[in-house]
This record gives sequence, C-alpha cells and structure tokens, in this order.
Amino acid sequence: MSSSDIFIGETIGTAVLILLGGGVCAAVTLKRSKAKDAGWLAITFGWGFAVLTGAYLAGGVSGAHLNPAVTLGLAVEGGTKWSDVPLYLGSQLLGAMIGAVLVWVTYMGQFKAHLTDPEILAAQPVEDGMVDQKAAPAAGPVLGIFSTGPEIRNYVQNVLTEIIATVVLVLAILTQGLNDGGNGLGVLGALITALVVVGIGLSLGGPTGYAINPVRDLGPRIVHSVLPLPNKGSSDWSYAWVPIVGPLIGGAIAGGLYNVAFK
Amino acid sequence: MSSSDIFIGETIGTAVLILLGGGVCAAVTLKRSKAKDAGWLAITFGWGFAVLTGAYLAGGVSGAHLNPAVTLGLAVEGGTKWSDVPLYLGSQLLGAMIGAVLVWVTYMGQFKAHLTDPEILAAQPVEDGMVDQKAAPAAGPVLGIFSTGPEIRNYVQNVLTEIIATVVLVLAILTQGLNDGGNGLGVLGALITALVVVGIGLSLGGPTGYAINPVRDLGPRIVHSVLPLPNKGSSDWSYAWVPIVGPLIGGAIAGGLYNVAFK
Amino acid sequence: MSSSDIFIGETIGTAVLILLGGGVCAAVTLKRSKAKDAGWLAITFGWGFAVLTGAYLAGGVSGAHLNPAVTLGLAVEGGTKWSDVPLYLGSQLLGAMIGAVLVWVTYMGQFKAHLTDPEILAAQPVEDGMVDQKAAPAAGPVLGIFSTGPEIRNYVQNVLTEIIATVVLVLAILTQGLNDGGNGLGVLGALITALVVVGIGLSLGGPTGYAINPVRDLGPRIVHSVLPLPNKGSSDWSYAWVPIVGPLIGGAIAGGLYNVAFK
Amino acid sequence: MSSSDIFIGETIGTAVLILLGGGVCAAVTLKRSKAKDAGWLAITFGWGFAVLTGAYLAGGVSGAHLNPAVTLGLAVEGGTKWSDVPLYLGSQLLGAMIGAVLVWVTYMGQFKAHLTDPEILAAQPVEDGMVDQKAAPAAGPVLGIFSTGPEIRNYVQNVLTEIIATVVLVLAILTQGLNDGGNGLGVLGALITALVVVGIGLSLGGPTGYAINPVRDLGPRIVHSVLPLPNKGSSDWSYAWVPIVGPLIGGAIAGGLYNVAFK
Repeated sequence: MSSSDIFIGETIGTAVLILLGGGVCAAVTLKRSKAKDAGWLAITFGWGFAVLTGAYLAGGVSGAHLNPAVTLGLAVEGGTKWSDVPLYLGSQLLGAMIGAVLVWVTYMGQFKAHLTDPEILAAQPVEDGMVDQKAAPAAGPVLGIFSTGPEIRNYVQNVLTEIIATVVLVLAILTQGLNDGGNGLGVLGALITALVVVGIGLSLGGPTGYAINPVRDLGPRIVHSVLPLPNKGSSDWSYAWVPIVGPLIGGAIAGGLYNVAFK
Repeated sequence: MSSSDIFIGETIGTAVLILLGGGVCAAVTLKRSKAKDAGWLAITFGWGFAVLTGAYLAGGVSGAHLNPAVTLGLAVEGGTKWSDVPLYLGSQLLGAMIGAVLVWVTYMGQFKAHLTDPEILAAQPVEDGMVDQKAAPAAGPVLGIFSTGPEIRNYVQNVLTEIIATVVLVLAILTQGLNDGGNGLGVLGALITALVVVGIGLSLGGPTGYAINPVRDLGPRIVHSVLPLPNKGSSDWSYAWVPIVGPLIGGAIAGGLYNVAFK
Repeated sequence: MSSSDIFIGETIGTAVLILLGGGVCAAVTLKRSKAKDAGWLAITFGWGFAVLTGAYLAGGVSGAHLNPAVTLGLAVEGGTKWSDVPLYLGSQLLGAMIGAVLVWVTYMGQFKAHLTDPEILAAQPVEDGMVDQKAAPAAGPVLGIFSTGPEIRNYVQNVLTEIIATVVLVLAILTQGLNDGGNGLGVLGALITALVVVGIGLSLGGPTGYAINPVRDLGPRIVHSVLPLPNKGSSDWSYAWVPIVGPLIGGAIAGGLYNVAFK
Repeated sequence: MSSSDIFIGETIGTAVLILLGGGVCAAVTLKRSKAKDAGWLAITFGWGFAVLTGAYLAGGVSGAHLNPAVTLGLAVEGGTKWSDVPLYLGSQLLGAMIGAVLVWVTYMGQFKAHLTDPEILAAQPVEDGMVDQKAAPAAGPVLGIFSTGPEIRNYVQNVLTEIIATVVLVLAILTQGLNDGGNGLGVLGALITALVVVGIGLSLGGPTGYAINPVRDLGPRIVHSVLPLPNKGSSDWSYAWVPIVGPLIGGAIAGGLYNVAFK
C-alpha cells in the first residue's frame, strides 16, 4: 500500500465517518432538525452506518482503519508496518477534523438557532444530547455533537469502559482477516464491523458515549475549540485524554490477545 | 445495455423507490394509518429499504441508478455514456411520478380522512411529517409526503446540505465498482447502498429532509400539483430548484473526486 | 423437488413465519408482555425477521415460497410447475395454522391476562394492536394478533393496497433468480427479501396491515375462530376475502410483469 | 478442532456475547446511562449484535456454539462429538461468568448510582428493565441485567415458551450447514443467526425474556449472587432451572427434528 493510498483512504474515510457520526449527534440534538429527539437507537445506528460508509469508501484504498486504536492493534498483531503508523494516525486526525467541519457546514442554520435560543442557553448546565452537563458543568450545549463525555466523571472508570469497548471492536476487526480468506468478502466484513459498532454503542455506550477511537474524539474537539460558534462554552479539555488513552490501550490489548488466542 | 433495458429498469426501479419512500412518509403522517407517528427511524429505514428494493429490482436490468445525481456522477466518472444520460433522466422522472401516484392510490382513504379533518386543517401552518410549515407557510399539510422541504429556509445553506449528502451517496455507489470486482456480489452492493442511505438520512437529513436525488423531489412535486386532493395547499415551487441543483452538483463533485482520489 | 420436500419445507417454514410474525403482534399487544407497546418498528422488523427465519429454514428444502402469492407468481413466471401449486398451497395453509397455534402456546398466560382484564374488555371497540376496532366493531381484542384488518374499511381500496404491496414483494422474489446466478448466494437473497418485507411494512402497511400473503391471514383467522379463548369476539370473516384475493391478484400481476419487463 | 480451540473460542466468544447482551440490559436499565429507557428494540438489537460479535469472533476457532442448547442440538444432529460436549459447556459457562463480570466493570459507576438511589430502592418491587418484580417480589432491582425472569410466573408455561423459542434458534443454526456448502459464507451465516435472534427476541421474548441459552442465564446469575453489590436483592434461584431445562429440551428437539425433516 502506497503512502498516497494511505493518506487518501484514511483522510477521506475518516472524514466521512465523522461527518455521518457527528451528523447524527447534531441531528438528534439541535433545534430545528427533523430528527430532533430521535433517540439512542438513531444515534447508535447512525454511528454504525457512518462506520459502514467510511469503511466501504476506504476499504479498497487504505484498508480503512479510520481509527488509531485499529492501526495500533494491527501493528501489534503484525498486519500493519510500524513505519506506516504515523501516516495512518496523521491522516485519521486530519480526516476527523475535516468531518467535524462538514458537520458544522451541514447544520449551520441549526447550530445558530440552537445556540441563540434563550431557553436552551438558560437551561445549561443540563443533559444535552450525548453529554451530561451535570457531571461537567463547563461543557457547552453542543459539545456532545463533537466529542464524547462521561455521564459519571470518574477517570479510572471511564478509561476502563473505553478499554473494554475498544477491545471488542479491534478483536472483531482483526478477526475479519481470519474469516475473509481472500475471497472478496471484504465488503461483508465492512457490514459486520458496522453492526458490531452498533452493538458496542447499544451495549457499552451508556457510561462514556463510546469514543473507541482517539481521533473521533480529539479531531472534533479541536474543531469545537476553534469554530466561531456563539455561546459554545467549554471544550472540556480535562476529559480529552480519556478517549485517547483508553482506546489506545484497548487496541494494543486486542492486538496482543489476538496473537495469543486466535493465531 | 440496450435503451429498452435502461427505460424499463429505471422506470420500474424509480417507481418502486418512490412508492416505498413516499409510502413511509404517508404511513407516519396520515390520519388512520397504522404507522402514524412511528418516528424518524421508521422514515429513514423506510427510505433505505425503498432504495434496496428499487436497486435490487433494477440492478440486473439498467444498473439501477434511479437518481440523476448518480447518473451524472457515473457519466463524469466514465462508467456511463453521456449519450445515455437523457434516457436515464427521463425514465427516472417518469418512474418517480408513477411512484408518487401509486402512493396516493395505496393511501387514498387516509389522504381523504386527513385532508378533511377540521383539526388538521385548522392547525396549519404547523410541522407536518417531514416539512416544517413555519418556514413555508403556504405549503400544504401533505406536501411532505411528496417532496422535501427545509426546516430553516436558507437557499445557500440548503443547497450546501444537499451537496454534501449527495457527495457521500454517489461516492459510495461509485466505490461499489471498486469493491465488486465482477464476482457477483452486486446484490451485496445494493444492500450496502441501502444502509448508506439510512445513514445519510439519520445523519444529514435533519436540515432539508435529504432529497439527494432530483427526481425523488421533482416527480412527486409535479404529481402533488396535479392530483385532485382537497385542501392540499401549495406545492412550494419556490423551493423546488434546491433539491435539483444541490444533488446534481453533489453528483458531479463525487464523480470528479472519485477519479482524482480513488483511481 | 420432491413432494415430501415441498410439504416439509413449506409446512415448517410457514409455521415459523407465522409463529414469529404472529408472535411479534402478540408481544406488542398483550398485557404482561415485556414488549408491550414496543411500536410499529418492532412489528415491521419482527415480521421481516420472521420471513428471514422461515425462508432460511425452508430455502434449501422447498425453495421457501411460504406464500400462495409467491407460488402463483412463480407459476405464472414459469419457475414453478402448476401441478405443484396445490401441494404448496395446502402445506402453506397447514403451516400457517400450526404457527398460529404456537403463538397461542407461547403467549398463553398473556392471552389469559389480557382477555380477562375488565379495563381492556370495557375499552372495546378501540384500537388494539394492528386492527382498528372503530372500523370493525365486532372484531375481538386479540384478532389483530392473528389476522389483518383495515384502518378504513373500503373493500376496493383495501384490495388495491394489498395488490400493490404484493406486486412489490413478488417482483423482488422473482428478481432473486436474476441476481443469484446459481452462485450460492441464496442466503443473501433470503436476507434481501426479509428487508424488502420490512420496507413494505413500513411503507405500505399503514392502511391494511400488509397481509401480502393469503395464508398468513386465513390460517391464523381459522385458528382464532376455533381456539377456546374467553371474550375473543368476532373473527371478522366479512374481511377475510380481501387478504386472499388482493395478494393473489398481486402475485399473478408480478409474475406477468416480470415475464414482460425483466426477461 | 482441538480442545484448546474449543476452550478459547467458546470462552472468549461467550464472554463477548454476555458482555454485550448483559451490557444492553444495563444500558437501558441503570440510572446515569445515556441509553436509559431506550426501549425493547434497543434490547433486542443489542442482543442480536451481541450474538453477531461473539459468533464472528469465535466462528473460525470453535465453531461458535456459545450456547449449550446449540451444542446439544449439534450433538443430537451429529455435527459435534458427544465427547466434546463437556468442554463446550464448561467453556461456555466460564465465558458467561466472565462476560457478566465485565458488564459490572463497564457500568460500575452506574450500578452504584442506581443501587443507592432512594427512589429506585423504595419503588421495589416494581417492573425494572426486563424483569417484572410483581411476579417475583424478592428479585432485586438489577437482576434483570444479569438473568431472565418471567412476566407471569408459571413454570410449565415458562418452560414451554423457552422450548419453542430455542427450537427456532437451533433449527436456524443447524440449517446454516445446509446453506453454507463450504463456500466461505460462514460470515453471512453469523449475520443471519444474529438477525434470527433479534427476531426471536421481538416475537417470542415477551413472556420470559428469551434466555434460549442455559449459560446466558446461569452464568450471570451466579455472578449476581456473588458480586458485592449493595441492595442487590435476591438472585431468584427458584426460577433458575427454567432457562436451563427449557433451552436444553428445545436444543434436543431441534437436533432430532432436523435429522428427521431436513436430511
């Protein structure tokens, strides 16, 4: 796989992942959206089909990691060269930032309506979309569209939850190689991975909003901190390390576990 | 592919697409429907499986574009001859109109009950199904079953949203060729495309109701304007250009981006 | 295909179809069910996965018609011998009756609790599950678990709705042959058909509850009429011909249309 | 298949099955979970994708039974050696217990918040998640996250419901061999099985919460009885035999029926 393949596949694939993933959070959160309050099933299926779309687009180009935890897991397992890792990670972060900007462009009018609504602003800090403001009083009313946040802020607990959820994800992706057998069923692997992500969201997303991907959280958080949104509030940088460290540990554990148990 | 294959596949496929897609909007909107108020997930899955059915039926006949934005994207990319484009577009528009008429036939009793209910008529202009009447006071109470409409009427913004959503759709469809490799997995491609459409609806449908297909909006809008429905109200022609221009730009961008990035 | 294959596959497959399909109606309707009021999405996905399970079980045995409208469509199209049709239909009806009895066995306690609840009985005639009692005052409080019923009773309209929905179903099933190409993807065809049925339910199920299958309605209606359920009320035989005639016409139309348009 | 393959595949696969399956029950039940009250569709899809993930991970290693009823069905049918059965069952029970512990680790903060909330504790016995406390007054407020319980406690009835649901499950899994034909579509079989499980949940889960798997109930029940959870209440051991005996009978019936009818 050439460097340009990695760069193009990971940047575009991750941008689409975050555009659709952040998009569903915007859709169910923001005022004047047709999907307002569509609920947790909408969020989890939305993120799952975001993975499907990104993985489908990038699968034939870069292998569609779209996630540093996956890249790390594959490097530990041996399927990805360590020398390629920096390019994968950089492209993923760039893509995640592009995706977050595109969410803003797509929902620009809704952001404005939401962030200038006196009732919504007065109601802060309250639960808003995916982030519980009671636990993080400084977090703004739209941060949950960009980044994850815990319902109960306990860093050890939050890291553990992210590790467990990421181990499941990366094990499933590594298993794809086992099942694939080079017979062109990679597309089916993208579908299975997407539904596994829906499952992880439904089952393990309750405490922290399942980042399970460092750039899925960091990229949009950077964008949140620089976008000129009125009344956007804090970007909650004190939590930002959790969805980076947890998933990376999880990815490494999955890579090692896969080598020990499944090979 | 012969002209008659294109004509038959695109007409029947698009008719089924709109019959099921418009059907789910009727199902959740109209009085005396068992699916009344079934919610946004029902709408997005309904449209996704409408794409699945139409694409499955027409896939082996005409390639199942069912959408001028897809045809344009494929023409830009090179997979479809420019000389075939007019026939594709005409067949798609004809099919979309047939589908919209079939929605009316299927829900005839419900349309009558809905449009003669004094409470529903008095409540206008209010949110009704997929269209926010506050932003378009003249739009009738059932227009949302036929055509899309913006929650916040801002043409630049609305066109941008439609462009972004359509780029995602057409990129995914173009990628199908990449993944397929001629090994008979076209059926799986139809399934993936359908789930991508569910994802686009969940994630990017909030602002405009995701036309992402010019004839999906224009065909039923024409039918709305000529059907003898009592109290049907305006067909909101002032918005009609947005879901034509936005998706066509998006399809062309996707075709070009595919050639630059993925080939 | 031997006669015993047809008999076993169609009987078991249709029994499972109706067990799961009737089961989801029981689940969302009956008192003391964990799924009470789970909504229209639950019903439509439940019926879709009922089709998936039945078709998956019977696919390799009898071809998994499970539906006289499908058998008729295939006979018109040429894929099924006319001389096999009576055996298909008889086995399907037997299976449907077995399935309906199994629903009753599975939910026996819930049936009893529901049908002896003074509030539920006093509330009749009201909307109950899938059947609108306002339109059919004599229909009992659990008939909707067994058979379909119209929201607005207008036989011409109801037959038209069933014809349209069945044409879509049978066309999709006939197309499966086109897509399959004998390459062992029949399992994928069962999945697509199941999701098409979810789509038909979401989009076209609003007016009549989408029988789209004569035995799916007749078999359970017979069982309803003979089961010793207290306070079960009428079996609404005046409507029983609609979900037989409509789907049979639809199946025949689809078979003919397929031959004219898709071959 | 070597003994270590069976041990590793079944232990890890069943652990993931219960982590995700128990996880979704925790997610919709516990206070301070983002998925609180997400509803029955979330539960049924969550369990289905739990099966998908576990089966996908273990499929290429141990064949992914993950369920003594499946192992028994396969032993009766002939696909699994009787001498392997004890190892399968032991590994499954161990995995189920590990999975239940992981649910507790993932949701530790939520368990604490839930079980120390005076309102929740005072409201006992009431319906809580998947278990109806009215029928089992001694059952604790979080037992439904670990084990199943009947809405109406009637052991004969409850066993019958579990038998019927398990016959459907195991028949579908046995049929997979029939459809597979050794052409590498095992992954598709995992997907179909997962969706069949969603269907069984939607359609047959209303009365007992569909254990359909002895270790899915017993393993977590043991963990519930030993975990140091404050105010956890009874583990309802009086019901524990039902989700063991019912599914085992169902698995054996399915194995025999498969041999008689489908071979």
